[in-house]
Parts: sequence; structure tokens; C-alpha cells
Amino acid sequence: MARSVLLTGAGGRVGQAILRHIGADYDWRLLDREPLPAAKLPDGVDNSDVYVADVTNREAVRNAAEGCEVIIHLAGDPRPNAPWESVLHNNIDGTQSVLQAAVDLGVEKVAFASSNHAVGNYETEAKKPDLYRTHDDFTLDGTELQRPSNLYGVSKAAGETLGQYYHDEHDLSVVCVRIGNLTEGHPPRNYERGQAMWLSYRDCAHLFERSIIADYGFEIVYGISDNDRKYYSIENTRRVLDYEPTDNSAEYHLDGTPKEESEA
Amino acid sequence: MARSVLLTGAGGRVGQAILRHIGADYDWRLLDREPLPAAKLPDGVDNSDVYVADVTNREAVRNAAEGCEVIIHLAGDPRPNAPWESVLHNNIDGTQSVLQAAVDLGVEKVAFASSNHAVGNYETEAKKPDLYRTHDDFTLDGTELQRPSNLYGVSKAAGETLGQYYHDEHDLSVVCVRIGNLTEGHPPRNYERGQAMWLSYRDCAHLFERSIIADYGFEIVYGISDNDRKYYSIENTRRVLDYEPTDNSAEYHLDGTPKEESEA
Repeated sequence: MARSVLLTGAGGRVGQAILRHIGADYDWRLLDREPLPAAKLPDGVDNSDVYVADVTNREAVRNAAEGCEVIIHLAGDPRPNAPWESVLHNNIDGTQSVLQAAVDLGVEKVAFASSNHAVGNYETEAKKPDLYRTHDDFTLDGTELQRPSNLYGVSKAAGETLGQYYHDEHDLSVVCVRIGNLTEGHPPRNYERGQAMWLSYRDCAHLFERSIIADYGFEIVYGISDNDRKYYSIENTRRVLDYEPTDNSAEYHLDGTPKEESEA
Repeated sequence: MARSVLLTGAGGRVGQAILRHIGADYDWRLLDREPLPAAKLPDGVDNSDVYVADVTNREAVRNAAEGCEVIIHLAGDPRPNAPWESVLHNNIDGTQSVLQAAVDLGVEKVAFASSNHAVGNYETEAKKPDLYRTHDDFTLDGTELQRPSNLYGVSKAAGETLGQYYHDEHDLSVVCVRIGNLTEGHPPRNYERGQAMWLSYRDCAHLFERSIIADYGFEIVYGISDNDRKYYSIENTRRVLDYEPTDNSAEYHLDGTPKEESEA
């Protein structure tokens, strides 16, 4: 029988990347604060599996998570420039709501969508733009202290710390995925930083599928494709989740067009 | 002229330890959510310097901080078992309120009362009770990832991350002091853990005085006395703040009575 998975923030970009690629393979419950149009639902999922609620609504989250084995928690304000009041409520309080529900209901695992912005201020002026280029070897591996570049990043860092606490104290399995720059089809255009942290849709779906299947305790991993130049190590993602990415931003020109096969 | 310092949470234990020892030496503003009885005010401070307000009241915090050079931010729910709703509001949102006011008003430095509970879950069952005894050499130094033992500790960890952000992004000087076990006169009685992280009142006052005087960027330091057995390194506290503690829990018996001078 397919594993039952609650996906919060199902209507967002990450949620849609996941559902597009592995939507047929799990027994989904979807939570979003907006109703989801039919085009956003995978085959076999109907409105009876969709919960329209704010993620800070404890009762609604419990109803949605009841009986699920895994939660993929994506819901939150995704704007890097989101104001404090919004990330405090939607991202920090929302993540506590999900983790507490997981513990109360006996959910096994939570995969939490963290962000590159939780460590964005390691990219100091002195390191740019070399940091984004293949001759530079600066790398973050997930063991470093958080260093957010905005209040959104602060909220994601706090979500990670909540995950550590719920793992240590309640034995919940938690993996925090610091998602890079997710775009469909090709890497971000003319944006070296985004290309170094590109995460393709299919690699994103594969990574979160591995978070459903793999066994882990508490982990912080980077979620990016196997780009030639990366300043986020994916060694831990490979080791913990058995992640095997397919894509690489180096197979595209800076403007996002694919290189000829002979060049790739 | 004495430096002007805003002390939030002035009526609490840490605030009172500070005011008792260095109350005469600075130009204080005191903020607390309860009115402060005269016995809690140092000589020379009258009600015109006292602000009674919740630390999440942005306007009140700005009024209190206007013209100050330093903020010592202690306000918050101090209970290790405080519920999430309280620490989310009082501790996480309250700390953002203070840091944002500091940046907006051009305050130079903020010393933030963090806690041993931000790293309490490094004390695993396997490490206890050896961790608390002199033959053991396990040590934390402030470079480790946070690992809170309760939701209060999560809130203190989030306050540290906010401090890192406000330093990196706005060039505010921030020192986070992970306070150990503060007791007056003698170490906690019959409590090995508390003795290993004892912070005497006079060492507490000295440490926060150094946070007013010293120059720093962003730092996480441990705030404990110079106890023979400690699993928190105070090397960084010495280096960053020129901290020179006076007390040592080893000068007391397990029950809190002082050893004879000949033994000490």
C-alpha cells in the first residue's frame, strides 16, 4: 500500500514540482490556505483529500495529518522580503504547529522546506562573485551555524531549530532541506548565484521522495542539483537520503539555453 | 559622562543582579512589564527613567531606547517550561522588537540574555552525570549548532539567530550571553549541573558591564563563573569581553556551604 503523506503548502511551487513527478505514487493529503484548482491536483486525488486552512490552525492541521506516516511541510510565506509579522506567524508558528501535530499523532517523519536564505549571509561582499564560479572552492555543508540574509531566512533557521528540538525531545525523524533556486526546465537565466544553487523540478521531486522513504534522525541537507559549481555540498544529502540528482546547471549557457549535446 | 543603557526586564533576577552591583555607574533606563518598586531601583534612578510596557510594544520600546548607547535585553518569559505561545510572543517577537528598535535608533550595542537551554540537549543520557564532574572534559564553546532542551530554549536560539542577522545586515554589535545558573551568595544546592554552570551575582554584573564597555561584532559567549568543573568554555567570554570572573563553585560544598578558607 502506498505511504500516506501530508503535503502542506501543496499549491506552491515546491509542492507542484513534487506532485507533478511523484503525484501518482503516494496516498496524498494536501493542505493549502487557498482552494486548489483541479489542475493542481494529481490524478486520483480529489477534494476529499484537500484541506483548506492556515497552517497555524492547530485543529485543521491535526485533522489533515491524522493517520499519515510522513509530513512534507512546505507551507509558509515564501517571499525573501516578507515582513517580520508574516514570517513570525506563517513560518515560525506554522512550523511549530506542524511539528507538534506530528508528535501528538505519532507521525514518523517530517521533511521541512528550509531555505538557502537561512545561510545567505555567508555570501559576503569579499566572496562575491568568485563564490559562484568553478575556480572557487568555498563550501557550506550543513554543519555551520545559521546566518540568515533576511527575516524570512531567520524564520527558516528557527524552523530548523524547532526540528532539532522535536527530534531530540520526541524522537521525531526530521530532515530540513535548504532548498536552492527551484526553476522548471532550465536554470535561472543570467543569474550566477541561482545557477550555482539550481534545483530542477525533477531533482526536487526525487529529493522529497527520498525524504519519504529514507531512514534518518535529525538532518540538515542542501537541496540543489548536481551543478558543476556549487557552494552547497550535497554529500550529506546523498549519504542521508540516497539522493541521486539528474541535472546540472553547467549543461546550460548563462542565458538558460541548453548547450549542444557535444558540449554537455 | 556615564553611558546611557536601556535595561529590559529590569525587575527580573538578572536585571537585579546587574543593578545591585553596577547600578550607580551608568545612566539607566529601565523597562519592565510590571511597575518596579523603589527597592528594585538603584540610587539616582527614579520613576521618570522607568518604562512600564510589554517588550513587544514597539512604540514603548522606541521611547525607552531613544538616545541610549547600549541595550541590555533581558525581558522575556524566563520559565524553562513556558508554553510555546508565550515564548513565541514574549521571547522571539520581543527580541525582534528590541533589535529593530536598536537599528532604527542608532543604538551601538545590544547584549542579549540567551540561555544554557539553547544547547541543553547536548546533555544526553549517555553523558550524564559525568558531564558535570571534573574528570570529564566535554566542553561547548559557542561555535556548536544550537540544540535546545525545551521551547524556551528554542526561543533563545531564535533570539541568537536574530542577533546574527541584525549584526550582519545592519552592523549592530550584538553579544548573546548563554547564562548558566544564576544564584546569589552560593551555588545551587545539591545540584551538580547547576554548580558546573554557576554564575554568581557579582560575576553576572561584571559580565554585563563588560558588554557595555567592550568592542565586538557578533558573538555568542557563555556566562558562568570560573568553576573548576565547567562544560561551557569561558575562553570566548574572556577574549571578547575581557571577562575576569571572581567566583568558583568548587569553593563550596555540594550543599552550598563554603569550604574552609584553608581548603579553598
